Amino acid sequence: MSTEIPPTLQVIPDPGAPRLTRPVVGHDQTGAAVDLRVVEERPLTIYLNAREIVTAMTIGDHPRWLALGFLVNQGMVRASDRVTGIDYDEELEVVVVRTEVETDHEAKLSRATRTSGCAVGTVFGDMMEGLEGLTLPPTPLRVSDLRSLSAAINRTPSLYLEAGAIHGTCLCQGPDPLAYFEDVGRHNAVDKLAGWMRSNGIAADDKTLYTTGRLTSEMVIKCALMGIPCLVSRSGFTAWGVEIARQVGLTVIGRMKGSRFICLSGEDRIVWDEE
Amino acid sequence: MSTEIPPTLQVIPDPGAPRLTRPVVGHDQTGAAVDLRVVEERPLTIYLNAREIVTAMTIGDHPRWLALGFLVNQGMVRASDRVTGIDYDEELEVVVVRTEVETDHEAKLSRATRTSGCAVGTVFGDMMEGLEGLTLPPTPLRVSDLRSLSAAINRTPSLYLEAGAIHGTCLCQGPDPLAYFEDVGRHNAVDKLAGWMRSNGIAADDKTLYTTGRLTSEMVIKCALMGIPCLVSRSGFTAWGVEIARQVGLTVIGRMKGSRFICLSGEDRIVWDEE
Repeated sequence: MSTEIPPTLQVIPDPGAPRLTRPVVGHDQTGAAVDLRVVEERPLTIYLNAREIVTAMTIGDHPRWLALGFLVNQGMVRASDRVTGIDYDEELEVVVVRTEVETDHEAKLSRATRTSGCAVGTVFGDMMEGLEGLTLPPTPLRVSDLRSLSAAINRTPSLYLEAGAIHGTCLCQGPDPLAYFEDVGRHNAVDKLAGWMRSNGIAADDKTLYTTGRLTSEMVIKCALMGIPCLVSRSGFTAWGVEIARQVGLTVIGRMKGSRFICLSGEDRIVWDEE
Repeated sequence: MSTEIPPTLQVIPDPGAPRLTRPVVGHDQTGAAVDLRVVEERPLTIYLNAREIVTAMTIGDHPRWLALGFLVNQGMVRASDRVTGIDYDEELEVVVVRTEVETDHEAKLSRATRTSGCAVGTVFGDMMEGLEGLTLPPTPLRVSDLRSLSAAINRTPSLYLEAGAIHGTCLCQGPDPLAYFEDVGRHNAVDKLAGWMRSNGIAADDKTLYTTGRLTSEMVIKCALMGIPCLVSRSGFTAWGVEIARQVGLTVIGRMKGSRFICLSGEDRIVWDEE
């Protein structure tokens, strides 16, 4: 498969970065030695002001966006909170996100919900919080754009193509991929994307979120809370994910392979411009 | 592909169980209506004696084994703890595991580590705890047995074959699969397996653990702490997973497809009895 980077892609995977993969020697089923590269997985401890919040296992790129996006997606840093600084210490593997006013998130730390998202399974507080009264914009989604996105994402050089065992997510607008993140955990990848959007003031209402991961309740809720009206995956669905997507009016498309897909929620946004 | 249940399989998936999947109607890329079944995903809150520990998102089968196995794998219920009862309330979606002596796990609740395992990303306390001085038995692993297991597992009727978007794990002995669990989260599946092993006094030292999930640090550590010397997956590796496996002498085999695989740790256990 030919690889090329779509011109609209502002953030791209860096499969050649030595810090992200490690060469290892193994053996195949015949006992013959084989060389391959495997993705790195390292801890990153996230602080919000003076409080240690969580330690994430991540490939290690974009630590500041990962930390900010995690805190934003957990509701610990709100739209109204002014972020005054994000400090990363590579040696200590620590990121400190500083806000002008210390936020009240202690209640969120009181309970951990173990969820079925690939990778990060910790959701502080109430998963459903913020979904009440949420309305997502009626942004149209063309079938022809989905086919273009699928081809563009699959052609983009990535750690997935290089080493596998990794999840990817891509923020898209119409037929154009805008930012492509990867991580050992699919939620890390989406959190990095959220941190990038917050840092760059990227609007969510006219975007589509592509993920390689399954469309579980956790991913559906995260996408909806991010304000992105369309969620697309090459993987499958869970019943609760579909139920929540239908409740909040999120367009959810799964099993996307080439030009084929299945839509289980929010069909009203889809423009069927292909046979 | 022909489906059949291996005679040695004591616990099998139940893809026909109406509680585990839900029929939904969607649309394909042409706008045509399509019927499919999607896996359920529901909360299960786990108590250890009087303390609420965690809420897991699970397909909902084997709740008692899931609760017990989670607590065992988190080190909250030790081998020396006598379990006096496991109560499940389907309406409340709660499981209470009772031990004769209340265990001291408060320290474990003080910190959550967010990890890259598919599904459950919460590991209480120190992930590496208990790995120091761990030695795994030199149980031989035949390449011919791996091929038999791969075929047997892939032929077994499952929710994966029925609905997809689910992870599976299988405890194996030589060429024989013994117990096959599935869940939306791969760690739920392994925890159910651990609960079944604990409940039935199944030895770990002569077994192989098969998982559909990636061989991350979290899965490698969990397998090693369970005392199972061989971990096999159809998915790929992470660098830290390989590093830890080599440190503790765990045999780790990934990318197993049919008769092909790659071994990156513990080759000394492998009997290369096929070309």
